[in-house]
This record gives sequence, structure tokens and C-alpha cells, in this order.
Amino acid sequence: MAEDKWKTAITEIKRGEIRIRGYDIREMMEKLSFSAAVFLILKGELPTKAESEMMRAILISGIDHGVTPPSVLSARTVQSGGNPLNSAVAGGILTIGDVHGGAIERCARILQDWARRPDEVSSLAKELVSDFIYRRRRIPGFGHRLHETDPRTVKLFQIAGDLDFSGKHMELAQAIEGELASSFGRKLPINVDGAIAAVVSDMGFDWRLGKGFFLISRVPGLVAHVYEELTRERPMRKLGDWNYEYDGPRERKMTDDV
Amino acid sequence: MAEDKWKTAITEIKRGEIRIRGYDIREMMEKLSFSAAVFLILKGELPTKAESEMMRAILISGIDHGVTPPSVLSARTVQSGGNPLNSAVAGGILTIGDVHGGAIERCARILQDWARRPDEVSSLAKELVSDFIYRRRRIPGFGHRLHETDPRTVKLFQIAGDLDFSGKHMELAQAIEGELASSFGRKLPINVDGAIAAVVSDMGFDWRLGKGFFLISRVPGLVAHVYEELTRERPMRKLGDWNYEYDGPRERKMTDDV
Amino acid sequence: MAEDKWKTAITEIKRGEIRIRGYDIREMMEKLSFSAAVFLILKGELPTKAESEMMRAILISGIDHGVTPPSVLSARTVQSGGNPLNSAVAGGILTIGDVHGGAIERCARILQDWARRPDEVSSLAKELVSDFIYRRRRIPGFGHRLHETDPRTVKLFQIAGDLDFSGKHMELAQAIEGELASSFGRKLPINVDGAIAAVVSDMGFDWRLGKGFFLISRVPGLVAHVYEELTRERPMRKLGDWNYEYDGPRERKMTDDV
Amino acid sequence: MAEDKWKTAITEIKRGEIRIRGYDIREMMEKLSFSAAVFLILKGELPTKAESEMMRAILISGIDHGVTPPSVLSARTVQSGGNPLNSAVAGGILTIGDVHGGAIERCARILQDWARRPDEVSSLAKELVSDFIYRRRRIPGFGHRLHETDPRTVKLFQIAGDLDFSGKHMELAQAIEGELASSFGRKLPINVDGAIAAVVSDMGFDWRLGKGFFLISRVPGLVAHVYEELTRERPMRKLGDWNYEYDGPRERKMTDDV
Repeated sequence: MAEDKWKTAITEIKRGEIRIRGYDIREMMEKLSFSAAVFLILKGELPTKAESEMMRAILISGIDHGVTPPSVLSARTVQSGGNPLNSAVAGGILTIGDVHGGAIERCARILQDWARRPDEVSSLAKELVSDFIYRRRRIPGFGHRLHETDPRTVKLFQIAGDLDFSGKHMELAQAIEGELASSFGRKLPINVDGAIAAVVSDMGFDWRLGKGFFLISRVPGLVAHVYEELTRERPMRKLGDWNYEYDGPRERKMTDDV
Repeated sequence: MAEDKWKTAITEIKRGEIRIRGYDIREMMEKLSFSAAVFLILKGELPTKAESEMMRAILISGIDHGVTPPSVLSARTVQSGGNPLNSAVAGGILTIGDVHGGAIERCARILQDWARRPDEVSSLAKELVSDFIYRRRRIPGFGHRLHETDPRTVKLFQIAGDLDFSGKHMELAQAIEGELASSFGRKLPINVDGAIAAVVSDMGFDWRLGKGFFLISRVPGLVAHVYEELTRERPMRKLGDWNYEYDGPRERKMTDDV
Repeated sequence: MAEDKWKTAITEIKRGEIRIRGYDIREMMEKLSFSAAVFLILKGELPTKAESEMMRAILISGIDHGVTPPSVLSARTVQSGGNPLNSAVAGGILTIGDVHGGAIERCARILQDWARRPDEVSSLAKELVSDFIYRRRRIPGFGHRLHETDPRTVKLFQIAGDLDFSGKHMELAQAIEGELASSFGRKLPINVDGAIAAVVSDMGFDWRLGKGFFLISRVPGLVAHVYEELTRERPMRKLGDWNYEYDGPRERKMTDDV
Repeated sequence: MAEDKWKTAITEIKRGEIRIRGYDIREMMEKLSFSAAVFLILKGELPTKAESEMMRAILISGIDHGVTPPSVLSARTVQSGGNPLNSAVAGGILTIGDVHGGAIERCARILQDWARRPDEVSSLAKELVSDFIYRRRRIPGFGHRLHETDPRTVKLFQIAGDLDFSGKHMELAQAIEGELASSFGRKLPINVDGAIAAVVSDMGFDWRLGKGFFLISRVPGLVAHVYEELTRERPMRKLGDWNYEYDGPRERKMTDDV
């Protein structure tokens, strides 16, 4: 397709044989959970038991968040135009962008940039929070529009605690939360995006994969919504008359010289 | 958005609470595998142990099939144009259509249509195969371009056997395979799409969800490919000069009266 | 990319030279309207003056239809998730499916199938309408949810009249309209989709290009909406609390053996 | 859909009436070229004759560039998976990103940022080029992978000359070209993206609309390619065996404790 062969280090295909990162698909089908398989294909290596459990909890945590988020609106609307299931799911995935799911990527980037430094976590957190306050920027992954305490974050950290799973990025995230609380005098808790960002960073994933975890997690929810739209609603979602307003130029005519 | 409220029976959201099909997300994060959660969100009810295991095997079976399929070409090409991860994955998902992954849907439809009849499986299979031969149509879900015996099908049926998981649709699929062999004198084996179609039909899923299982399964593979493209390749995949040919009209000029 | 070279008869590229269907892009830039260029690239030949004018009127007729249609909802929602302009326009285009814009394709198919017969237009129309009534199917391209008389159809036919542009498909469409009126005792007028279907059929375009005319026409509108969303609205369109309703299973707990 | 009504200043719809930016669609269908209508819907006002002509030349210039660019590869590949025309065009549009068509946006941004200063064009160009050389960054919109002198740029500037269409952004672009030539001792000519960026900036368009012009221009080409794929090729584009290479981990087995 281009100048050279297409190269890949992900999957090898031969007649009668499929190997993911070197492992036979049959052995994977026999022994791995889907969460472990997701870890393997993205990371290139098998997870530890704790990593596999954390990945499982992450993937479940994002599986759906009801009918209100923009990705669901797009997915169901694409379906309602008379389009196939895959197009509708693609419409939902298109919507998962910088401000919807994107906080995982942006938060992981910050955690990875700062955790690289040799300093103690507590002083890193102090400096990081000052820096963001000084530049008047919000730290992605902290605070939530709806949930004061996000039940998913609480459970994710509890599972991490039970598994003794932790690392510098999770510690940094928690130190930031503490620092934010003392700077603002009220809690601005780690939300589920921030928690996932910390966990996948401790697993050694590149922040540029951040949205990927959300995509993998949310696709089942999108499929469920598109199917619900198909089976329960009439075609062609559109705004009702009372739902929109035209506020542009009033009626006008062209002059003769257009 | 339309005349009425948007309704959903999938997920209920309140402040500090998320319930999927009635179950608390925290309980799901603690107790379920991701495969079981996928079953729950699509079906509305928790799977049995055998259903959960079959779902796990299905999702792993389709996780990736190398760099050659059209969905991977699209996904990596979208990335190479300088677009975000979610756009590239959407490009891949767009490609999973009637002839790529679509056999699950079409095969499940046939199995569900025929299995509804009260007849014995063996006579259904005989009649079904005759009908397709008479109409000169291929039965989707049988035969594979590369794998004579698809390792994923073999393993899927072996796991089903170990779990005593079976039902009328799996039996019908296997009877069709036998019938095709005796009609054509050579094996036209159930491929992985056909096997998945049979298994999800026995779980009671509507054939219209068929592509959904493939999407959920393949998204991790697409994420891995897009990330590989981003980190290992130069931007802008394009055809090299020797890779295409123009065979349209030769050079010509417009007349004066256009 | 595949077994062979990619072939194309559309555009030839050499160093310093670009030819569309054999014509130099510079000559096109000098002499053609964009509507004529659209005709050329899709049809392979230059339009007559009347065809060029009709194409112009068609492309303008569909340029936008306000903020309510599903394609606009998707496009603006994708943007609002923090995604680039091209992704948002793609989200809109994804939505233009069988029940939104798709009537051009389906109506053109019917007109082309029936106009192929040697019979007189009036008897074709009679038979066609009977056939649809008998099969209890609606004829796509007739009737509109909002406009009793679609101003675009009226203008399109008026322009066609002024240009003496007509052919068997336009005549058939008009005869169908008459036949529907006498069968139902009230007008079920040709809508803009039906009018476009008739005109492009008379230009010799394959019905499978039907949605293409709508896409080309509507993309400027989608670009305008996405830009308006970007510049006038806050990110993340979502349903407000009073806009949705959960009607699924009530709270429940898992048993111990999941 | 959200807290408030959806607002729009683009198009007003009433029963039997459609007004774009205040103008009746019927008057537009009678009097405007499609290029003028595109200008109107994006800008909110009618173009002058020169602006309308420049828009026409721009839209034709980008209508297609053969089968090799990534957007065409994606669009045709999506179609080849057995998907509808609109999905395939969406796949192509998804691909038009930062490094494919995106130079219009990035170049227009630079031209608009610098042209805002009160300085003379020649000194602006000198300073701008020094700045980019100092920061070791390429200026988007200058140079082309294939065409030494892009025939579309030459024609675009010639048409601009004939129309006496010019402004500070075009002058700045040309001054940059001169400056680059004297800095590097060889020509790094304005490419078609740079030329379009300059022209639309002189028309007063926001750089954030940059990709939009390319999208509107290229959609007819994408439609033509998808239709060609549908009518001339077999389904399921995939890489042939000799076209790819697996270079990941060799065969390996899992240990017992996964």
C-alpha cells in the first residue's frame, strides 16, 4: 500500500494458526480472561494476576453511563437514520474525544511526565498543583459533573488496595487529591478517568493509549444502546419544534447583481 | 431531543450511583468478569457459568486477525492522516460490514429462522441445505478464505463440549456442516463467524446483535493496530507509484461551449 | 494492497499534472462551475448546459435543512465531545442513511427499474402504484413530514421546465404523483428526494449513486453547523435530567454463585 | 437535548419555507452558483463576484487527486467491507486530518495570526520565516511531495490575478515563498493547501474552517471512488501475503500460573 510492506508485531497468521504476541489463540481461549487478553494485545506481555484483576475492574467500570452522554446520543441518532449497527457504534466512538473520555489520556500524560522525576511523590504533588493553579488550568481526572464521590473510583481503589496493587502513579494521583483539598479547602476527588489513568500508568501503558481503555470498555454499552434504539424507537430522531430556536438573519432578498 | 423523553432500560444513573440492568456497578466490578458484564448489558440478565465461559471464549477468539483485514487497513490509514485514536478505531469499525464480520449476523438469522420450526434438526439441515443449493446461495458462516479448519472454531466447540453447553442452534449448525459435506463431497467447515452465530443464538441473542459481538471482540485489536501505526510508522499511508494504474479516458480538451 | 494494483478511471496524476476523466484540472478551474465538475467526476463526461443547471439546482436544494435533522444532531454532538471538524462531519454523514436522505436512492431505483420497460408512462404509473398499494408499501420520494408542498420540489420542476429538461423518469414521477392523488383522493406530492431521484435518473446516473448527491449537497451545511457548535456552544452536549427516563429493571442484588 | 433549546443562526425552517442565512432557498436555487451558496452558508453573507469565482476555483481544485491518498484508501476499503456509500464516504472524511488536508487550517492560522500585526508584509514574512527556521519547524502550506510546481496553485493565483482579487494574506503567503527561496537557495513553492489558506483568509474566513473547504471540495471525488469500488472491484480489500510482514515475538507458551 505504501513504499514497503506493512509490518506488524501484534498478530501472526498462518494457515490454521493465529498467534497474538506469540501466543496461540487456542491457548488464550482456554486459559485467559478477556481482560487478560486485552492486556496482552495492548502491552505485548501477559499481565500478572493483580494487573489482570485491575484491568477487569477498569473495563467493567466504564461499560455504560446511561443514555445521556454525547457518545450515546450520536450512536443512537446514527442508527435512527437507518444505518447498520457498526456505523452507529462508529458514530458513538467518534464522539469520545478530548472532553468525553479524553481525560484518561490527558491525566495519564501528566502523571507520567511528573512521575518520571526522581523526587518524592509528596513534593511532586505540591509542585504540580501549584503549577496548575499558577497557569489557571484544571487538572484533568479530578472532579465530576454529577458524582461528588464517583462510586467507580472508590471501588477501583478498594480493589487495588485488596490486591496490593499500587505504584508511583497511583500514589501521585492520591497525593494530588490531597494537595487539591488543602489548596481549595474542599474535596475535588479523583474521578474514574483519573483513577484509570493512574492504574494504567502503573501497568506501564503509554498515555497515548488512554482513550483506548475507555473505547474497549464502552463499546458493549454502545452496542446495547444502538440495539435498544433499533428495537424500541421509531426511525429518525429529530428535534421537536419547541426544542430549537433560529436566531440568525431575518428574511431578506438578494439584490439584482448577485 | 425528539417529541418525548429518551427512554432506556439499560443503565440508571443517580448521584453517586450507577446501576446496569438493575445491578450496582460496584457489585459488578467486584464479582463479574468482563465477559459476564458484556452478557448482562446486552441480554439484560446475568449469564450462567457456561454462558459466561462461552462469551469469554467468543470475545477472545475475535480479538485480532493480523494486519491484513480491511478494518485494520482503514483504521491504520485514518490514523496515518493525523487523526485521533478514537477516529481511527471508528474507521475500522465502519469497515466491519456485510462481508467482513457480517456473517455472524446473517448466519444467526438463518439459524434462528429455521430452528424456530418444530422439526428435527437433521431434517431441518437437509431442507435448509437443499434450499440454499436450489437458490444458488452460499450459507454464511461456512468456509474460510485462509483456514481450512479454523482453529478458533475447533476450540470454541471443544470448550462448548467441556461445558456441556449446547442447544438447537449449535446442533443445527453442525448438522448443516455434515449435510454440506455429503452434498459436495468435501468439507466446508463451520468458520468462526458461524460458530459464534450458533453459540449466541443458543444464548438467546437476537441475530440483529450479531455484528455487535465481533465489534466488542475486535476493538482491542484495532486499538493495538492504531497505536502501532502511531508509534512505528511515518504519517500518510499512500499507494506507491507501482501500486496503482489509471485506466480511464486519455487526455482530452473541452470544446468552447462548456 | 490486495493481489493486484489498485485501478482507477477517475483521475490521472503525474508530476505537475492532474487530469479528471481526461481533462486538465487547470482547464476545469478556468471553465467549469463546481456543479459541472461534480457531474463530470461522477458521470465521466461533461454535462450539457441544462444538465449543469439542474445539477446546480439540486446541490443548492439540499444544502441545509436547519438544526433538527438527525445528521446535524450527530455532527454537532461529535464536535461537542472535543473532536476535530472532519470527525464531526463524518458523524453527520454516517447518519444519512436509509430513512434520512436514502429516499433518493430507493426512489431512483424504482424509477429506473420501471422506466426500463417499453410501456407508456401513464400505464407504468398505474401499474406501479397498484403494485405498491397491493404490497402495502410506501413509494419513497412522495410526501414530506413537514412541507405539504416542498418549495424545493416546486422550484426544481420549474427550473426543469424553463430549461426544457425532461425525460422518462421525470414524467414517470409526475404520473405517479397523479396516480397517487386519484387513488387516495388527496395529494401525496413528490418531495425533494423524489424530484432529485427523477432528475438524476434522467441524467443517466445509476440509482446506487443516489445518496451521493445528497452527501455532496449537504456537506457545506454540516460544516456550517459544526463550526457554529464550536464557536457558540459549550462542550459536551448531553441530555438534561428531565429529558430522559429509565424504565429498566429496579435495583437488585446478585446471588452468591455468579 | 441539553439544558436549553438548540440554537442556530444558519437556517430557518417553517412549513413550506426554507431560509438560509435569511435568503429563500428558492431564490438561491434560481440565482446562485453552488460555490456562492457554499460561501453564503459558511460566511453568513453573499460573496462578491470575485469571491464567488475564487470559491469556485478552490472547490474544483481539490475535487480529486487520484486513488493514492489515504482518504481514498479508507473510503474504498470501508465500502469493500460491504458497507453503504455514506459510511464509506465518512471513512474517507475521517482520514482527512492534520497531515492530509490539515495544512489549510494550520497555514491559515499562521497567516491570520501574523497578518493581524500592523507591520509591512515584507518585514512580517522575514520575521516569520526566521522564527520558523529558528524553531526548526516547517511552515505548513509550502512544498509538495509530488508536484514541484503545483498546477492548482499556479492556476489559483492566475485566476486571482485576473479578478484583481488579493489581500494581505495572499501577499504574505507570496512574500513567505520569496523569503523561503532566498533563505534556502531553492524554491519551496506555495502548495494548493497554502494557496487556499491565503485566499479564504482574504475572504475573512476563520482558520478553524480550514479543513471544511477541503471536505466540501473532496466529497465528490470520494463519492466517485466509492462508486468505482462498488462497481468494479470484488469485496474485501485485504493485503496480499507478500505485502506484509510479522516482526513480533516468536512462538511461545504460557506458564501454568496465568
